[in-house]
Amino acid sequence: MRDVTQDYSCLALNTATLGHNMAGMGAGWTPEQTIEACAERGIRGIVFWRREIAGRALEIGRYAHSVGVEVIGLCRAPFLTGPLAFESERAILDDFRYAVEETAELRAPVLTIVTGGIQPGTRGVSRSLADVERLVSDVLPYAEQCDVKLALEPLHPMYGGDRSCLMTTRDALDICDRFRSKHLGIAVDVYHTWWDTDLPRQLARAGDRIFGYHVCDWLSPTEDMLLDRGMMGDGIADLKGIRRDVEAAGYAGFCEVEIFSSRNWWQRRPEEVLDVMIERFQTFC
Amino acid sequence: MRDVTQDYSCLALNTATLGHNMAGMGAGWTPEQTIEACAERGIRGIVFWRREIAGRALEIGRYAHSVGVEVIGLCRAPFLTGPLAFESERAILDDFRYAVEETAELRAPVLTIVTGGIQPGTRGVSRSLADVERLVSDVLPYAEQCDVKLALEPLHPMYGGDRSCLMTTRDALDICDRFRSKHLGIAVDVYHTWWDTDLPRQLARAGDRIFGYHVCDWLSPTEDMLLDRGMMGDGIADLKGIRRDVEAAGYAGFCEVEIFSSRNWWQRRPEEVLDVMIERFQTFC
Repeated sequence: MRDVTQDYSCLALNTATLGHNMAGMGAGWTPEQTIEACAERGIRGIVFWRREIAGRALEIGRYAHSVGVEVIGLCRAPFLTGPLAFESERAILDDFRYAVEETAELRAPVLTIVTGGIQPGTRGVSRSLADVERLVSDVLPYAEQCDVKLALEPLHPMYGGDRSCLMTTRDALDICDRFRSKHLGIAVDVYHTWWDTDLPRQLARAGDRIFGYHVCDWLSPTEDMLLDRGMMGDGIADLKGIRRDVEAAGYAGFCEVEIFSSRNWWQRRPEEVLDVMIERFQTFC
Repeated sequence: MRDVTQDYSCLALNTATLGHNMAGMGAGWTPEQTIEACAERGIRGIVFWRREIAGRALEIGRYAHSVGVEVIGLCRAPFLTGPLAFESERAILDDFRYAVEETAELRAPVLTIVTGGIQPGTRGVSRSLADVERLVSDVLPYAEQCDVKLALEPLHPMYGGDRSCLMTTRDALDICDRFRSKHLGIAVDVYHTWWDTDLPRQLARAGDRIFGYHVCDWLSPTEDMLLDRGMMGDGIADLKGIRRDVEAAGYAGFCEVEIFSSRNWWQRRPEEVLDVMIERFQTFC
């Protein structure tokens, strides 16, 4: 396990942590300003959301590269299933392919997939998981062609209805098993997986298919299902234990801090959030 | 699988469905009035919460029996772990034993255990699960002596921090495996388990260790982590599929409706809730 107490060069920022996606919240920085703030602090990886880089992927990718910050991923493919997905499958597939292109333009290696929830009019998980698999199989050849890796991210089971029919690392790896592509793997987020006693076994099984590792903390109590994630150290997830297992599986990539926190961290100055994030990463992760 | 469209004699009420536990909400009925309302409608099983029967377990048990309603369980043992548990282990064990006695006095066969969450000052699940196991081992001999069955109920992973370090049916059965007592089993609640693609396999594994089966529905979206459960048919849980698997495992007991719904069902007249519950059970379960 890497020692991050001295060297935090594996730390990355997911811009959600600075309140990217709520009107009037967070930094209000341009992507370039966010990249600069990372570069200044020695944060060498960054993950953007598509709305932030829309139409400017190439130039933002180049700018990051020029100041020594890697854009390590893009959030995210459109929902493939569930009540929040586009109505037509054609629109979903078009946007999915476009997200692959944007990822390539950014020079980012990984596009994250959040599957979307349970298909309207259906019950249980299986029909929706089958749809996810079918849509991934449609786009995977294009991702391979663009050399963009697709990372299936299981979300916490509380998002099962509307946001993700994929809720366990086991199910994500089961899908990967059926494709056996170097361009299909998983993203592991402690927020979504900390509770899963099967996680250590699944991480060992994952091996080199872990394409991303996301950290924050699970607050107890949690006040809001979407926007109450904790800064590392403020909650009860076994952050060191999970990173140990992730790295034992072979993962040597970035640890990406992704915190949705409308009432706490998104209310603070972004400079403060970044500084605290570095300190907490070194102490608690 | 039993046909409940004609015969709903396996339907039971958990009094939480009538808003038992929020001041000024729900029925405001005495336990006897609730029992009568069940008897009138052919609802032949009922589950109380301890606050409702405090000091009157014997007479309430007798009364239910006299009008043909079975008290099939008691909610619940005290939290054994986590931030909401009594501070001293002695207080936890005393109250746990007292809950066993109350169950016996009610002539109810089953006491449900909600484990409580992650032990303060610790991270991850394992230390807390070990504490649960230790405390259960302390009280199990007394439960056997009183002929009261203990049902470990895994809760949804969103309750992992504060309410339940036991979050999967697999973990619950792992604990049962280590005791091999006829008086230790599990309760399966669709609200807590609908998302789990491992559930069918675990139910088959459970066999005759399923001591209770709880139904409601998972709403999509869910507005509140605690008090926004849905009436059967209003959500996306595969209610028929889960009951099929529960009964295929050998379960022939009651299907207990337990709905925490502060903004919808607890606002309605209790007579209406009971009538709708019967109709929805016959249609969607």
